[in-house]
Amino acid sequence: MSASGQALLALSGGVGGAKLVLGLAGELPAEALHVLVNTGDDFEHLGLHISPDIDTLLYTLSGLSNRQQGWGLADESWNTMASLERLGGDTWFRLGDRDMATHLWRRQQLSRGDTISQVTAELARRLGVQVRVYPMSDDPVRTTVHTENGDLPFQHYFVREQCRPAVTGFSFDGISAARPNRDVARLLQEHQPSRIIICPSNPFVSVDPILQVPGLWLSLRDNPAPVILVSPIVAGLAIKGPAAKMMAELGVPVTAAGVARHYCERYPGLVDHFVIDESDAILADEITALGLDVAVTRTIMNSDEDKRRLARFTLDLAQEEA
Amino acid sequence: MSASGQALLALSGGVGGAKLVLGLAGELPAEALHVLVNTGDDFEHLGLHISPDIDTLLYTLSGLSNRQQGWGLADESWNTMASLERLGGDTWFRLGDRDMATHLWRRQQLSRGDTISQVTAELARRLGVQVRVYPMSDDPVRTTVHTENGDLPFQHYFVREQCRPAVTGFSFDGISAARPNRDVARLLQEHQPSRIIICPSNPFVSVDPILQVPGLWLSLRDNPAPVILVSPIVAGLAIKGPAAKMMAELGVPVTAAGVARHYCERYPGLVDHFVIDESDAILADEITALGLDVAVTRTIMNSDEDKRRLARFTLDLAQEEA
Repeated sequence: MSASGQALLALSGGVGGAKLVLGLAGELPAEALHVLVNTGDDFEHLGLHISPDIDTLLYTLSGLSNRQQGWGLADESWNTMASLERLGGDTWFRLGDRDMATHLWRRQQLSRGDTISQVTAELARRLGVQVRVYPMSDDPVRTTVHTENGDLPFQHYFVREQCRPAVTGFSFDGISAARPNRDVARLLQEHQPSRIIICPSNPFVSVDPILQVPGLWLSLRDNPAPVILVSPIVAGLAIKGPAAKMMAELGVPVTAAGVARHYCERYPGLVDHFVIDESDAILADEITALGLDVAVTRTIMNSDEDKRRLARFTLDLAQEEA
Repeated sequence: MSASGQALLALSGGVGGAKLVLGLAGELPAEALHVLVNTGDDFEHLGLHISPDIDTLLYTLSGLSNRQQGWGLADESWNTMASLERLGGDTWFRLGDRDMATHLWRRQQLSRGDTISQVTAELARRLGVQVRVYPMSDDPVRTTVHTENGDLPFQHYFVREQCRPAVTGFSFDGISAARPNRDVARLLQEHQPSRIIICPSNPFVSVDPILQVPGLWLSLRDNPAPVILVSPIVAGLAIKGPAAKMMAELGVPVTAAGVARHYCERYPGLVDHFVIDESDAILADEITALGLDVAVTRTIMNSDEDKRRLARFTLDLAQEEA
């Protein structure tokens, strides 16, 4: 753990969050960056434990990810899936042949009694990732998406149904019994982080599960570190994933202001700074009225330089407070 | 099940046995051929249930096998193993990417409570194999190889140690509680098979486990069908695998006569006919003296025509009795 005052804690889901985390990793010493990751998307499939957001983080940080699609591995092949399809097996969730190795290895480690935190730390080490990546909890939390067609486990909604059913709400099964990741609890108690960044991840299914682990959001709010939220909605669109569609279906305005309102209503007093895209500058007053300090910049991250630039902007933002 | 009198029951291990079974499949209606397969080589690895002999039979009969090496699948790729090696995982037992699909599918079926027999029957169906392939038992039997370097689970001896340690004996853990495959028990009781063929498989680690399932070898001996053994040893060599090396280490003469003696001592009265290679014709008198009816032919099976020719020879052999 880094010296007091130097640690940065980021909260992240998958692809969108991983982009900013990669930018942060380029701007900070590896040991200073701690990432708390959603595991509500985790599920058991084909006898394997699948942790999509953790793997997206680790693959991105290790440089092994498929940079075009943002998830999965580069130079991937799909022969297991092709043969499984021939057998009439379940192939709606596509695991590449190289990605399969991660899952077989993880299965073995879990079978011998290791926690998800231990397995994640060891996987990071083996992939050469020095940034600390933590599952939000070692206890199983499973996101259920309530839709007009009934309840769906998250990956069924997200991958099998390709987010088609209109959502009516979410629940996080197991969350009331989930204990927060111990290393992050210790980081918050013993090593004052300089900043807490909520990455541009889906508020409903990536960040909410993390914040709703009992005790977690209050410990973030009550921590002196400034909390900086980066908007996942730009010009009324989600850069990646179903956030915008979900907001529309839930009757929330599909704007950065709608995102701000979501956080302010559910987690009053948590967010200090809200980073919005320059295309949304017109919303600044509306967001400021919610009590947030608004910062405007270009938030779309296409290139690595975009990621580092947004990371620097975010770090500079709270510089005087840190 | 075929009409009484038409069924043929073959006992088989992996590669060598599968060759003769393929020949038999070319000579008989598919529904007439029933194959009882060793599962003493089965093991759990990477959280998967691996049934090497069953898969060799099914892959061979489906035409999907790698015909050069005799096991595994054609057009196989090894990206999962390559990535697992990079992760520092267990890669000594090599599972190809396409073969992995079989194992993931099998794992799923077993997890929902299906027996190995049910899973094997369904896998055969999905691979388009009409020959009936049965595991010798649904109860777990695990071959341990006793060696001068200590005891080794079979696959550790066979694959990881590449049969290097000198063997001193074998045990089949779980065998005393194993019940014979139910379909084969019914076949023997209700549908008189016309012949029972012991394929040219390793006597110690492929056929012994099958025959030592309690009750099995006696029910074969007491069955009126002639039992025909095809020698796995030709001119003092095993065509495939460690049978000859094992015989030498156990102090058994490495000849077809040594094989005959093994069967006659352990399973008195079981074998009626013994098919040996023409290069071993000189041993005929020695084997006849053991009470076996010796038949000499070319037993090496390189081409598909070799397999069918040996199958025809074996079928013709007991024609008058069947």
